[in-house]
Amino acid sequence: MKQKKAVVLSSGGLDSTTVMAIAKKENFEIFSLSLFYGQRHWLEINAAKRVAAALGVKKHIIINTQLDKIGGSALTDDIDVPKDRDMKKMGENIPATYVPARNTIFLSFALAWAETLNSSDIFIGVNAMDYSGYPDCRPEYIEAFEKMANLATRAGVENRTLIKIRTPLMEMTKARIIKKGVDLGVDYSLTFSCYDPSPEGLSCGRCDSCILRKKGFKEAGLKDPVEYA
Amino acid sequence: MKQKKAVVLSSGGLDSTTVMAIAKKENFEIFSLSLFYGQRHWLEINAAKRVAAALGVKKHIIINTQLDKIGGSALTDDIDVPKDRDMKKMGENIPATYVPARNTIFLSFALAWAETLNSSDIFIGVNAMDYSGYPDCRPEYIEAFEKMANLATRAGVENRTLIKIRTPLMEMTKARIIKKGVDLGVDYSLTFSCYDPSPEGLSCGRCDSCILRKKGFKEAGLKDPVEYA
Repeated sequence: MKQKKAVVLSSGGLDSTTVMAIAKKENFEIFSLSLFYGQRHWLEINAAKRVAAALGVKKHIIINTQLDKIGGSALTDDIDVPKDRDMKKMGENIPATYVPARNTIFLSFALAWAETLNSSDIFIGVNAMDYSGYPDCRPEYIEAFEKMANLATRAGVENRTLIKIRTPLMEMTKARIIKKGVDLGVDYSLTFSCYDPSPEGLSCGRCDSCILRKKGFKEAGLKDPVEYA
Repeated sequence: MKQKKAVVLSSGGLDSTTVMAIAKKENFEIFSLSLFYGQRHWLEINAAKRVAAALGVKKHIIINTQLDKIGGSALTDDIDVPKDRDMKKMGENIPATYVPARNTIFLSFALAWAETLNSSDIFIGVNAMDYSGYPDCRPEYIEAFEKMANLATRAGVENRTLIKIRTPLMEMTKARIIKKGVDLGVDYSLTFSCYDPSPEGLSCGRCDSCILRKKGFKEAGLKDPVEYA
């Protein structure tokens, strides 16, 4: 039987790498897509390259979306990345690291590629449990995107392959995600999560992304293989 | 009263230029966005620059979306642009010039910019009358995008400005669009519509886009100021 194709959005971080391992376990042929969006550093993209090689993807493409021309986020603009936020309050308001419409842009590119490949499965590592409170990580958003995607495309109109946005991590805690990845043989030393690394490329340990990652490893009872400044 | 801001998607073609004139007439401050998507030529983008200058936009940005890395269309890939198609049959099937998820990608960038500007109005020149049968030009698609957009963004979550996708040309024939533009003072010699121009930059007159444009001017009883090969 011919292997089914999946487009996997890969940021080089913990979540998207786990998602890729899940898609691989489901026997998909993986086409991984990384979008540089004008963030402060290329370390994420380098991590995505390492992950693509380690997981043996069929093809990995990197697109520079130039979101820094639009700005509006601490990750793309001259705004400080918030540090040492209280984890319990992360879901309550949308932080400065939110990049306007980022997941919509990411999923749109994935949709274009899926349509070109005649693939119906797009995997994205969004999570509504241990997350920063971004609007475009919620299940109702993903559902609305999927609906739109099926009206947007040739496949949807011709009633062929319907697009499914696959979010296997949606209801998982960070600790569960990490345990799942370890079960699937993911080497988390390849991944990179920090929003604001040191000039030497070490993770800051204090941005939302580092805080959530560290908490996850702690709760999973595992050692985080990434070095912190 | 402070002028409201609108993001207008501008391809440099007839439709998006008319839409921009309509937004201007409605007294919006215009932020125009052109997306190069790896099409065969930059003539459209040059036209978009001329239009932005002529209509006095507040800011015009051009983003190269690198859709040629994804391919899958006669406009971005090594596939012939169909010529001399029967106009009556254009809406019946999706032609090779369809670019997978193009409008979704375009609208996603517009959404990111609108959110950054705190604007609630995104204008796009889609049209379901005289069109090539692209799935992402239909009203049901636009409606689904708008719904998704309001779940994707900070504004939607915080119940502030709701995003509206404005499609003033949706139900207009090409002839009516042209007459409307002429009423608003649009100089159509600035615009460019051809998918496959000659090496000298002349419009081919035979692709869907040229055929629809020529028909529009003819039915409007006006002379098309653009030169054909």
